[in-house]
Amino acid sequence: MAYATEKLDEEKVFKDPVHRYVHVRDRVIWDLIGTKEFQRLRRIKQLGTTFLTFHGAEHSRFNHSLGVYEIVRRIIDDVFAGRPEWNDDDRLLTLCAALLHDLGHGPFSHSFEKVFDFDHEDFTRKIIEGETEVNQVLTKVSADFPKQVAEVIAKTSEKKLVISLISSQIDADRMDYLQRDAYYTGVSYGHFDMERILRVMRPREDQAVIKQSGMHAVEDYIMSRYQMYWQVYFHPVSRSAEVILSKILHRAKDLFAQNFAFKHEPLHFYSFFHEKVTLEDYLKLDEAIMFYYFQIWQEEADPILSDLCKRFVNRNLFKYAEFDPAKEYKKLAKLTNLFEKAGIDPEYYLVVDSSSDLPYDFYRPGEEEERLPIHLLMKNGELKEFSRESEIVDAISGKRRTDHKLYYPADLILDDDASEMNKQIRKLLDIEN
Amino acid sequence: MAYATEKLDEEKVFKDPVHRYVHVRDRVIWDLIGTKEFQRLRRIKQLGTTFLTFHGAEHSRFNHSLGVYEIVRRIIDDVFAGRPEWNDDDRLLTLCAALLHDLGHGPFSHSFEKVFDFDHEDFTRKIIEGETEVNQVLTKVSADFPKQVAEVIAKTSEKKLVISLISSQIDADRMDYLQRDAYYTGVSYGHFDMERILRVMRPREDQAVIKQSGMHAVEDYIMSRYQMYWQVYFHPVSRSAEVILSKILHRAKDLFAQNFAFKHEPLHFYSFFHEKVTLEDYLKLDEAIMFYYFQIWQEEADPILSDLCKRFVNRNLFKYAEFDPAKEYKKLAKLTNLFEKAGIDPEYYLVVDSSSDLPYDFYRPGEEEERLPIHLLMKNGELKEFSRESEIVDAISGKRRTDHKLYYPADLILDDDASEMNKQIRKLLDIEN
Amino acid sequence: MAYATEKLDEEKVFKDPVHRYVHVRDRVIWDLIGTKEFQRLRRIKQLGTTFLTFHGAEHSRFNHSLGVYEIVRRIIDDVFAGRPEWNDDDRLLTLCAALLHDLGHGPFSHSFEKVFDFDHEDFTRKIIEGETEVNQVLTKVSADFPKQVAEVIAKTSEKKLVISLISSQIDADRMDYLQRDAYYTGVSYGHFDMERILRVMRPREDQAVIKQSGMHAVEDYIMSRYQMYWQVYFHPVSRSAEVILSKILHRAKDLFAQNFAFKHEPLHFYSFFHEKVTLEDYLKLDEAIMFYYFQIWQEEADPILSDLCKRFVNRNLFKYAEFDPAKEYKKLAKLTNLFEKAGIDPEYYLVVDSSSDLPYDFYRPGEEEERLPIHLLMKNGELKEFSRESEIVDAISGKRRTDHKLYYPADLILDDDASEMNKQIRKLLDIEN
Amino acid sequence: MAYATEKLDEEKVFKDPVHRYVHVRDRVIWDLIGTKEFQRLRRIKQLGTTFLTFHGAEHSRFNHSLGVYEIVRRIIDDVFAGRPEWNDDDRLLTLCAALLHDLGHGPFSHSFEKVFDFDHEDFTRKIIEGETEVNQVLTKVSADFPKQVAEVIAKTSEKKLVISLISSQIDADRMDYLQRDAYYTGVSYGHFDMERILRVMRPREDQAVIKQSGMHAVEDYIMSRYQMYWQVYFHPVSRSAEVILSKILHRAKDLFAQNFAFKHEPLHFYSFFHEKVTLEDYLKLDEAIMFYYFQIWQEEADPILSDLCKRFVNRNLFKYAEFDPAKEYKKLAKLTNLFEKAGIDPEYYLVVDSSSDLPYDFYRPGEEEERLPIHLLMKNGELKEFSRESEIVDAISGKRRTDHKLYYPADLILDDDASEMNKQIRKLLDIEN
Repeated sequence: MAYATEKLDEEKVFKDPVHRYVHVRDRVIWDLIGTKEFQRLRRIKQLGTTFLTFHGAEHSRFNHSLGVYEIVRRIIDDVFAGRPEWNDDDRLLTLCAALLHDLGHGPFSHSFEKVFDFDHEDFTRKIIEGETEVNQVLTKVSADFPKQVAEVIAKTSEKKLVISLISSQIDADRMDYLQRDAYYTGVSYGHFDMERILRVMRPREDQAVIKQSGMHAVEDYIMSRYQMYWQVYFHPVSRSAEVILSKILHRAKDLFAQNFAFKHEPLHFYSFFHEKVTLEDYLKLDEAIMFYYFQIWQEEADPILSDLCKRFVNRNLFKYAEFDPAKEYKKLAKLTNLFEKAGIDPEYYLVVDSSSDLPYDFYRPGEEEERLPIHLLMKNGELKEFSRESEIVDAISGKRRTDHKLYYPADLILDDDASEMNKQIRKLLDIEN
Repeated sequence: MAYATEKLDEEKVFKDPVHRYVHVRDRVIWDLIGTKEFQRLRRIKQLGTTFLTFHGAEHSRFNHSLGVYEIVRRIIDDVFAGRPEWNDDDRLLTLCAALLHDLGHGPFSHSFEKVFDFDHEDFTRKIIEGETEVNQVLTKVSADFPKQVAEVIAKTSEKKLVISLISSQIDADRMDYLQRDAYYTGVSYGHFDMERILRVMRPREDQAVIKQSGMHAVEDYIMSRYQMYWQVYFHPVSRSAEVILSKILHRAKDLFAQNFAFKHEPLHFYSFFHEKVTLEDYLKLDEAIMFYYFQIWQEEADPILSDLCKRFVNRNLFKYAEFDPAKEYKKLAKLTNLFEKAGIDPEYYLVVDSSSDLPYDFYRPGEEEERLPIHLLMKNGELKEFSRESEIVDAISGKRRTDHKLYYPADLILDDDASEMNKQIRKLLDIEN
Repeated sequence: MAYATEKLDEEKVFKDPVHRYVHVRDRVIWDLIGTKEFQRLRRIKQLGTTFLTFHGAEHSRFNHSLGVYEIVRRIIDDVFAGRPEWNDDDRLLTLCAALLHDLGHGPFSHSFEKVFDFDHEDFTRKIIEGETEVNQVLTKVSADFPKQVAEVIAKTSEKKLVISLISSQIDADRMDYLQRDAYYTGVSYGHFDMERILRVMRPREDQAVIKQSGMHAVEDYIMSRYQMYWQVYFHPVSRSAEVILSKILHRAKDLFAQNFAFKHEPLHFYSFFHEKVTLEDYLKLDEAIMFYYFQIWQEEADPILSDLCKRFVNRNLFKYAEFDPAKEYKKLAKLTNLFEKAGIDPEYYLVVDSSSDLPYDFYRPGEEEERLPIHLLMKNGELKEFSRESEIVDAISGKRRTDHKLYYPADLILDDDASEMNKQIRKLLDIEN
Repeated sequence: MAYATEKLDEEKVFKDPVHRYVHVRDRVIWDLIGTKEFQRLRRIKQLGTTFLTFHGAEHSRFNHSLGVYEIVRRIIDDVFAGRPEWNDDDRLLTLCAALLHDLGHGPFSHSFEKVFDFDHEDFTRKIIEGETEVNQVLTKVSADFPKQVAEVIAKTSEKKLVISLISSQIDADRMDYLQRDAYYTGVSYGHFDMERILRVMRPREDQAVIKQSGMHAVEDYIMSRYQMYWQVYFHPVSRSAEVILSKILHRAKDLFAQNFAFKHEPLHFYSFFHEKVTLEDYLKLDEAIMFYYFQIWQEEADPILSDLCKRFVNRNLFKYAEFDPAKEYKKLAKLTNLFEKAGIDPEYYLVVDSSSDLPYDFYRPGEEEERLPIHLLMKNGELKEFSRESEIVDAISGKRRTDHKLYYPADLILDDDASEMNKQIRKLLDIEN
């Protein structure tokens, strides 16, 4: 039998708290899950540093990837199969792309990628197309299958409908992570009627659309997303941990550039410091390795690196103040000055962090990131952009919200320090005496 | 104000998916949570290797410890407070013991402690009484407070009622972990009406007892426990991972004893290999460190160590067969022989694992581990041992159930190996050709 | 001991699927629940005809009333107690008002009150102040206690803070019914983090306010409310049942006015037909009585009454078409004409129903119904009207949404009727042939 | 197209809180749901008087019937379809039998049938085979289809596999009601992993069997059932309401036999009093009618009928004492005597109620009700009776548990009555003075 269509003798299931069960019948999917590159996702948390704010959020990207696969499987097998607009030859491609869409993520990728200036999406492609177990499995389907999968994930494929199931404003990725992150953190946001949304999805040439009768379920989904962003993903305490993490990496990189003599050689980081990262190096890096270094770096001679690592490992985070860059840039300059005088390096200890989200948008041609809007399939067969029908979504459509905070180590600005300088810092940061 | 009774200006809450919120009002509790020894529990999974079977089970002991604290807090503040049999002076002691009861757990402690022959409970005591941040906090309450807390956890305290809340056949520890592990794995077992059980708990001199009207809720709890043991905790696939883990540690220890030249010095393990573990060494060890070594040991020259580490990290586990030691010891001997001939070291690759549980027992004086039975408080004020009232629990009371399995690497016994030896192995293990 | 402060020997609990348990400790509350007027609420469905659309929605007002009581109890006992802005002397008054706020509801009160032109709120007052078991219990507290309770429910009391807990834009009534109606219907809307909202409620002189940190939980609540209105409460199929119900009552009243000879005397309705309803008559009326008449009226000689009752009892409802009164009034006139010609009385068989909701509003002085806005308590102690802080709520604030539908009996406009008249009706109603 | 295989243009769904959605695609099923006999089930509570103990339990048999249908549909369409042991020609028959299995239930049937000595199962058959809308729909499938459906429900059909899906020790009926009743009451029992049980069900000639790997899920189901029986179905307070209800009917029947002059003629009951019940009469009877009579009978001259009705309507129930018939028959005789002397008719006011359950049993040939045991399908293809594999179920297998209680009106035995007789009654009933 052709490998592409080979079925397991008996369906395998994974017990999943969000979808109850994840069902696998295809040999290809089963083999992909067993590869070491996919298993590696078990060692990378879905929400990075969020577990320091919501202690329940310790789930991995492995967890989430299975969930995205399962949602896509249900859409295809339970809703799309048999409809003329759906080509079932794209089934395996879609399932593989769903399962592997986050394959290139590294540990704490948000900060990591910024400091070392690269993009995990490149690595997703490299893992799929490079010398890996994943690539071996995919190649067994057909020689150009890896490339096809990579193109869907990179959104460069011509199969727009397939892409829309995995990355669009209403895709399996978002539907899984909203529910999963809500489940593990325990917050009450993140609930919406996914079963209903799946039931009203319809394949169209360019994208999956939503039958008009599902409008309210989608409204609810958009609102869930909005709440999850501001209540969970942009929680100021998680951002404090992220700031520290980012400054640790930054400091290590700087020290390396300055030929600092590390007590323990940071072997796993060398290729990142040199900005010549091979696939092999990249795949070795996971959160366990990161935490290993954070632990041993506590003992390095550099006081900044050591202090930041202690803060991160023991969760002794920075405090924050509201900050308005447009109005308060002078205040920031003053504080920077005072921190320097006080011997607290502002480069590492006085950090502005900005978070920004756009809950939903319609198509604005020519913009940097052209967003495909959600379309409603009206009773008469027409398609209508979502915000034209939904008052609620129209009200928030295209409205970017940005939040700035100023992070600093409150514990270094001691209560009992009566110096004038300290007093000024406290006043500017609005810390009570 | 005395530190022992100091309250936070405003109650702090932790969002918790199992108990909704964990509430902290006491300064002492807040300070304990902030210590680095308690934060370390974030880096140790509650269920060790179970996440390789149930992918959702990635939650930490930090998570569980907060839960146990919260349950005890509710019992004391909402149910016991004001009752003559309860001495509210024991409140803080009980809360601290609840929070810290798992403090000495190390990574994968089940296997680790067996290989290196020690007991995490010793380390719980050492952390509480040694030079640690936890000890500093507890000492601020009173000089002998650390000792008091340690004695409650060690069950050597005279305060039997306090002990029973934390370790007995119906304690906050079990009530939390059954629900929490069910939540994270997603299994449907593990649900019982905890709110009802808490409401019907009553303090008595020697233990917390259960009002007769709560009998069925407790039956349900005992059944949940039974199901969780066999469905989750003793799941044969998790045990396979545990077997491999244990053999890795075993091999590393043996190699060290044989002066094997490790490419990377296993610094973190030296004191364990020497069996002279200091508190400082112990506290450095967490799952990240373990995974770091599992990763780099893949590259060591010893084929067994390397192979076992690859298996564990990439989840390429052993298969298992049912095994009855009483009847099949001859078969095991034959297999051992055949494995040796085939060049597969049976010491590491042919392993019997036995799991055993006693769902509930009444008091059997003189036994190794004397178990305090659950007592029902009858309407007339008498106490009655639980299994005398509950037919269901009586039916399973004192019945130990043991399961033996034989683990082996199916992939090393190749399908296409037509040798007679291989055929014999396959036959004995009942592997289909 | 004074009756007002008398506690039960042992707390009583009601198992409640929404709040887990409803706790009663006060003798007055226990006695009120036992009165026949309160027990009567078991025979009146919370959602009237909605069970014909959502089969799960069969729960009673008894159910909901206990829930509102429980929420208020938690606010007072767990959050407000001990705060200087809260006067605990108002505790019993608030609990009684919460428990009894719906006491005057009759069966299907929405339609019933419109047809017979009265207001259930009058009857709430009459039951509380009249010769009833409820009045006896309340009077035992103090002679003017019934009056105090009635005034809180009628919103004429001077105790504005107490009123705000029971009727405001964020009150215990709404918080209970949104969650309860979602639970029983099974829809996924209606979830919000009530526990968090309760924790951040603070008493102020005129109303309960919300700490700023609870803003997002309240946003979520307002969105839940919005969705429940349009997805559940205004569901077009329930409105169809409501239209029929209302026309049944209408027809019976008309027939009575015309001295129609009922086969079975509608004794329970006489006082309503005469518009001289005594408290005793009113209390006899419940849904069982209504259904009794709907059943026997099926056998009355009047074809309209009989047909409408059959439709309601056997759930053979009217279909609906979208209708825009501003643009389509001519079409309605034509249809009315055609219905008359076809012998289908348009008074009973061609009905426009309009539903309208205002999800949230700030204060607009001088308007018919002055709505007290929700206020946020900012960190600096100031109060701020909610929509000034919340972009999402601002976007929908004050925007009334209205929906009109035209209801008609599709089955009477037969498929196989080829007459020109029938064809015209079908065309106007956009019914496919 | 043949009616039997006709599909709706678009699948219809019912929102269901237990199964999320109930899916209907078959025209026959849709038409059956629309019949007036099926709609009548909306006016009959699933749990009779239980709502007086668990206020949430107000759900109807309509609700449950849809649930049973949905479970069977999932078994057939998602698990059995395509397996050689399953004949898909039986699909419609099975679905119809599932949907209609409770069709003959009347209001409060448990008591009603005992007093008037008939069996609702007869009426199920009569409705299916008599002149009804249900019969019309079924006859459209084929002339003998109604009979086939009736035989499956009556367990006289030769299609044993089909029967086993609807009535056996593990059937869709039980699986639905355990979960549904737990959901509506809010108790934590009643949860088990139905999705898993469905997945491991396999069709065999005589019954549906369970794959060995599902053993623990079935254990959990049997335990749920056990707990639901004792915690919910046999709750002593519900039984008190049932006792009163039964005595009301008893009294009305006796009064009628004695030619009592009812103020309002109990027209709906005549055929029951005469024990000549036509199908038409039977179908008119629902809970609304019953409650109508309970209300008006409060005003009848007979003090017993009036008192009992008041008790039932206003929930002023009897209290209970434990009672052991074997040991306490003399005490009962004494009490009967004393009640008579005190002018409290013991026939109506001193009632022994016995509830009895057998949680699971294996086959015991020749017994009155031969129970088909649950069979496990072992890995080797053999079938094994369930209790031979499950220790827990073996422990309770075949053990009937019976509970007796003595019900009496505590309020009639006044506190302040100091007579010797009253003192004796109190002493015998163990009522505190």
